[in-house]
Amino acid sequence: MHGPGDVRVEEREAPRIVEPTDAIIRVAAACVCGSDLWPYRDIGTGGMQWPAPMGHEYAGIVEEVGADVETIKPGQFVVGSFWASDNTCEICRAGYQSACVDRVSMGALGAQAELLRVPLADGTLVATPDIPADDLIPSLLSASDVLGTGWFGAVAAEAGPGKTVAVVGDGAVGLLAVLAAKQLGVERIIAMSRHESRQRLAREYGATDIVEARGDEGVAAIKELTNGLGAHSVVEAVGTQESMNQALNATRPGGHVGFVGVAHGVSLDGMDLFWSLAHVHGGPAPVRRFLPEFIDLIWKREIDPGKVFDLELPLDQAADGYRAMDQREAIKVLLRP
Amino acid sequence: MHGPGDVRVEEREAPRIVEPTDAIIRVAAACVCGSDLWPYRDIGTGGMQWPAPMGHEYAGIVEEVGADVETIKPGQFVVGSFWASDNTCEICRAGYQSACVDRVSMGALGAQAELLRVPLADGTLVATPDIPADDLIPSLLSASDVLGTGWFGAVAAEAGPGKTVAVVGDGAVGLLAVLAAKQLGVERIIAMSRHESRQRLAREYGATDIVEARGDEGVAAIKELTNGLGAHSVVEAVGTQESMNQALNATRPGGHVGFVGVAHGVSLDGMDLFWSLAHVHGGPAPVRRFLPEFIDLIWKREIDPGKVFDLELPLDQAADGYRAMDQREAIKVLLRP
Repeated sequence: MHGPGDVRVEEREAPRIVEPTDAIIRVAAACVCGSDLWPYRDIGTGGMQWPAPMGHEYAGIVEEVGADVETIKPGQFVVGSFWASDNTCEICRAGYQSACVDRVSMGALGAQAELLRVPLADGTLVATPDIPADDLIPSLLSASDVLGTGWFGAVAAEAGPGKTVAVVGDGAVGLLAVLAAKQLGVERIIAMSRHESRQRLAREYGATDIVEARGDEGVAAIKELTNGLGAHSVVEAVGTQESMNQALNATRPGGHVGFVGVAHGVSLDGMDLFWSLAHVHGGPAPVRRFLPEFIDLIWKREIDPGKVFDLELPLDQAADGYRAMDQREAIKVLLRP
Repeated sequence: MHGPGDVRVEEREAPRIVEPTDAIIRVAAACVCGSDLWPYRDIGTGGMQWPAPMGHEYAGIVEEVGADVETIKPGQFVVGSFWASDNTCEICRAGYQSACVDRVSMGALGAQAELLRVPLADGTLVATPDIPADDLIPSLLSASDVLGTGWFGAVAAEAGPGKTVAVVGDGAVGLLAVLAAKQLGVERIIAMSRHESRQRLAREYGATDIVEARGDEGVAAIKELTNGLGAHSVVEAVGTQESMNQALNATRPGGHVGFVGVAHGVSLDGMDLFWSLAHVHGGPAPVRRFLPEFIDLIWKREIDPGKVFDLELPLDQAADGYRAMDQREAIKVLLRP
């Protein structure tokens, strides 16, 4: 990205092993993240250096590994998180690999590319049982971030059997939070969406109710569906002030808000939070925690998160992909190098 | 209270049974809460009507019960929460009696008095095994709010074995959060305090470390004590912007902030919360959840939360009690009608 709205596909120097714990992978598929739209729309770009390599979601085949890499081997098909992590520190062991003491942001390395350097390869990458069938690649790619982020939202909201879960946001993350809630045993899942095609996918993923209203009306609709109490669990998957308020206000006392929308310019009022008696938890998803389970579920074709990719383009048309997501013409765009 | 800073003890009409679920109790002891200092200091008094009856913490002997009261009997010594609750609704059953669908604020009824009407008596009050010895009364009184609030802070911060807990605030609530953490099996408890007498009580209650620094320096001190990671659990027991920031920043990724300070004018930045990966939970403590356990522990003399009362006055000197707490000459003031 050469600046907001300016995406170009260019030849860059091929990445090479820098640290002995690195791997180089040949990217089978990458994609455009909702968070890539922040700089595209010139939000939160204060510290950015242009041009910036883009993309942090990836799956592909290992080409080469550094001298200290032990478990990951050339030729394996791997999926990794959008944060590289050692997966051995105290924070990783507690399941928060996205805050690993040695973490490296994959965004700075640029996964929307043919080749990608992945730091801390043993901690970051998980190999699939075999080279996957081509139709599994979108789902495996989704495990790198968007599935993990939606799933973490549902886990952070403590979605589970016997609970009513509401999902604020019908982007790919919100839709996959619906899928996650279903997998976590929730019987009643309310998707907040105004778009027919997204509502359809939400229902396919397990939504039992759709609420089209937003803001206070949306909150009132959730309360009406929950005996006036609010949902037990609400996933915030947008990242605006309105969506955060909606999530907090739609949660019953003692309930849980899981927030995974990047909360630029959002603030939570202390007294609102105090009186809500809600639990609030969220942030950059520790995808690595869930990757082995994701790969297993996808491999057995028990989940199909790849359906959120409703537009597939060759990598050299990446600019069209950004435009389609920015204009909400596509839920999520897959790029094939 | 006739207005900020203006506390008077006056004759009022004796309370009587209004609803058939009410009880009237003769107050054995009441006290001044940190939250009573907010109107005293003219903070958050926007909607208040003067003169306002004050006090929401109480223990005493049941004088009379309404026709529908079944479990509470005249002559029993009882302790109740600062929120009256039915203890049967879905929210109560989930342990959030302070957000009961039928809740009534005891503050509006005025527990700093000889007689007090307690709504929803069966749901709100818990009887002691017998009439208590006089020296147990301060501890039983503390169970009504301040012990419950500190305890809830520790529970909301998920204090437990194997964790390091930090407590921001050395008022009565903070000190009792230390006691709670100890009871909940925490081995390492860091109390943040600058006052020698409070430090002493914190150590007596189980604090293993004292940090005198505040703000960023205080955060750095907590990190230094926790391998640079931050505490697993932090209790926020003050309610200012500085203390909330301190609590959030002193918590490790994946850790828990339990906040029980009334957060007037406090806000949480969405991005700070996002990157912290902390859990945040708090609000008005559901004291009723813990009351049976508190009474049991106090009755067996396993805990002595009443030590937070370092000044005892007859009720008619209530104004002196407010002044002493406002000036931080006393940690907490007990009033005997």
